Amino acid sequence: MTVTDPVDLRLVDLHPALGDPALTSMNFLNEVSERYPAAVSLAAGRPYEEFFDVASVHRHLDAFHRHLVDELAYSPEQARRLLLQYGRTKGVVHHLIARHLAVDEGITVDPEAVVVTVGCQEAMFLVLRALRAGPTDVLLAVAPTYVGLTGAARLVDLPVWPVAGGPSGVDLADLRAQVGRARAAGLRPRACYVMPDFANPSGVSIDTTERRRLLALAAEEDLLLLEDNPYGLFHLDDGARPPTLKALDTERRVIYLGSFAKTVLPGARVGYVVADQRVADADGRIGPLADQLAMIKSMVTVNTSPIAQAVIGGRLLEHGCSLVPANTRERAAYSRNLRHLVAGLARRFPDRGDGPAPVRWTVPAGGFFVVVTVPFPVDDALLDRSARDYGVLWTPMAHFYDDTAQVCALRLSVSAVTPEQIDVGLDRLSALIIDELARQPPDLTCGRS
Amino acid sequence: MTVTDPVDLRLVDLHPALGDPALTSMNFLNEVSERYPAAVSLAAGRPYEEFFDVASVHRHLDAFHRHLVDELAYSPEQARRLLLQYGRTKGVVHHLIARHLAVDEGITVDPEAVVVTVGCQEAMFLVLRALRAGPTDVLLAVAPTYVGLTGAARLVDLPVWPVAGGPSGVDLADLRAQVGRARAAGLRPRACYVMPDFANPSGVSIDTTERRRLLALAAEEDLLLLEDNPYGLFHLDDGARPPTLKALDTERRVIYLGSFAKTVLPGARVGYVVADQRVADADGRIGPLADQLAMIKSMVTVNTSPIAQAVIGGRLLEHGCSLVPANTRERAAYSRNLRHLVAGLARRFPDRGDGPAPVRWTVPAGGFFVVVTVPFPVDDALLDRSARDYGVLWTPMAHFYDDTAQVCALRLSVSAVTPEQIDVGLDRLSALIIDELARQPPDLTCGRS
Repeated sequence: MTVTDPVDLRLVDLHPALGDPALTSMNFLNEVSERYPAAVSLAAGRPYEEFFDVASVHRHLDAFHRHLVDELAYSPEQARRLLLQYGRTKGVVHHLIARHLAVDEGITVDPEAVVVTVGCQEAMFLVLRALRAGPTDVLLAVAPTYVGLTGAARLVDLPVWPVAGGPSGVDLADLRAQVGRARAAGLRPRACYVMPDFANPSGVSIDTTERRRLLALAAEEDLLLLEDNPYGLFHLDDGARPPTLKALDTERRVIYLGSFAKTVLPGARVGYVVADQRVADADGRIGPLADQLAMIKSMVTVNTSPIAQAVIGGRLLEHGCSLVPANTRERAAYSRNLRHLVAGLARRFPDRGDGPAPVRWTVPAGGFFVVVTVPFPVDDALLDRSARDYGVLWTPMAHFYDDTAQVCALRLSVSAVTPEQIDVGLDRLSALIIDELARQPPDLTCGRS
Repeated sequence: MTVTDPVDLRLVDLHPALGDPALTSMNFLNEVSERYPAAVSLAAGRPYEEFFDVASVHRHLDAFHRHLVDELAYSPEQARRLLLQYGRTKGVVHHLIARHLAVDEGITVDPEAVVVTVGCQEAMFLVLRALRAGPTDVLLAVAPTYVGLTGAARLVDLPVWPVAGGPSGVDLADLRAQVGRARAAGLRPRACYVMPDFANPSGVSIDTTERRRLLALAAEEDLLLLEDNPYGLFHLDDGARPPTLKALDTERRVIYLGSFAKTVLPGARVGYVVADQRVADADGRIGPLADQLAMIKSMVTVNTSPIAQAVIGGRLLEHGCSLVPANTRERAAYSRNLRHLVAGLARRFPDRGDGPAPVRWTVPAGGFFVVVTVPFPVDDALLDRSARDYGVLWTPMAHFYDDTAQVCALRLSVSAVTPEQIDVGLDRLSALIIDELARQPPDLTCGRS
């Protein structure tokens, strides 16, 4: 690369998503954490690593191979072909995923309605690509929104319309209003994206009554729901899990997005989508939406690595396809961390009873995330200062809103740290907050949280 | 699913690619082969399975793990994290791929310009998504064209303009003419897709002189070249390999698409793209196009399974990063099959010297594919009859043209069969051809081949 030949392509000549904050914000967050490796990270939403084990990869591969030969009566050649050759676009562990959904979630699903994907991200991408038929299509999404959803929508040129989340997890009146507004503007809302359990980033869960209301509203408004459920298993030890939307869905309104990144391991890059909606294909034959998603998948990744699928399949087989017992230790660690973080916040910011508390936080019933609201704007510059001068990382909530309005909140994650790191991180965070409060008069009406 | 509620979604409400032959044709071909499992398949482009070995997966995983610990001085925790946790978007075997390209292809590439993808298909998809900035962009592609390229282009709403392939592999005069035509129509040709070595489906290779001319033309016309090279290693035993376009590329004109599906195994679903073109990012910092592709990848699949990458990495390490010795047995099998097929065609259709031969075929210098031209139209109905009544499968060349014009040729593949199967397949194919010739007067001017 010579000085006289500085640039081959201009960003403006590439797809517009490439300059968009939905795609660049992840990069920014990664760069900050790389620049300050000594900082305690309450930012990373990665699963807990302590129980990871390379030997388990070999064990799971063998278990799935035995399953093929012993239980499904594959010949050695057939088993070898399934694991190593090109294969079924919709995947090879679909039957085990269907069993897992029956056992753990009470969801009855035809394995043919399952597409095994390269992580939940590809599942999201395939669904959005399928649903975006033309320029008048829009996607509704509960805000604040997982940035991977917004980024995938950008790549298929699908605008995302925010729907207020609020304390119940989804503001149904606002959802109805947004559908009306979109339709009045000549647009077609294709679906509403929602993470009903311990949402990323809000940590909020939708209760069973509201889930039923959401389904009823979807039926009234003829809307699909995209249910994303990466954290549902991680309720506090004593918590009861509400049924998923898909378990309550009697009208095929729900497209269910599943992940094994948190419940098994991220390195397999295996997720899935349940899409049992009936679609007539080009020849008039009726099949599940999954078949259409598979057609798209064949042109994006062809199929999900059967070796990676076998790792997940073996893990599922190890516990009778239930991931609840498989995650006993992980759940205990996350519960311990979540309680420790919330107690640590309460100790450091006691409510002195004189008016509204300047620093507030959510107390989720599970999951990875706590949102802290402060009476000053929280932006990337503050994160940079926090990392450099205080040695603690977190995520500005502004990254989860698809606009540039001021946000006065930050997301803390408990998933990839120890209680000791939480203590150090909170000490540093509270020093930052106290210094910021001293630097500027608190603004209790400041922006969104 | 009740009778009163037959369809939830109409195909017309989904992305238009879903009704398109570029996406449905693969399905059709798969269905025919599933319907007639007893038929001999000269259709499948899958690699030879005889040498596949499930034990090698374990061995390669271990070899890559040792490489991390012994050669790169990773701690056990770091190695475990790299293999099992979320990780680097551009991949973790990029340094080994760069070494492989240096050793096997004489390509010098900064590992930072490599993105490891979920098969070569994702590499293609990412590049097309990046290059399609707006509705005036078009992609040129040498015709007949690999259907995975056309399908990926459909998903990003990028029109594909065919460029004549011809006997030299690319008709440079036509390429120049098409660029001119597109520009005169107010369109912007972003790149030209080409498979210079044993192209799928034509089997044709571009010689070194023409490769240099193609690069010169690309420079003159300010065009990128997308070089797809899945078969380059599989020249006949005695053949010399011409340099890849990327090895000859001194101006960063070539985006190189790599696959390990044929040289290692398809089940890992690992490919890559070399994109060293310099791009200024949103902050004005200059980096390789690979960084922009990675930004897109983070919203499609996040990263390629490091477990799957480790399988490929281990295999590369086993042979000093050279895939030439690693494929000695495979090359011998493909060479044997290719010679056997060509000799078998010559025996069954001897040139009787009375005018143009009614049945002709290509004699490639390597690769998987031979194209047979016949004096009658070859369509899906004929394939269906061939499978049902004659018990032999092949691929109509019409599937590789992005229009509905009549084509009088079929593709035979030698990659997934034995010489005995080739004999049986050719006996059946020649019976079909002889019957067809008896059914209709031969049309030596019939359509394209």
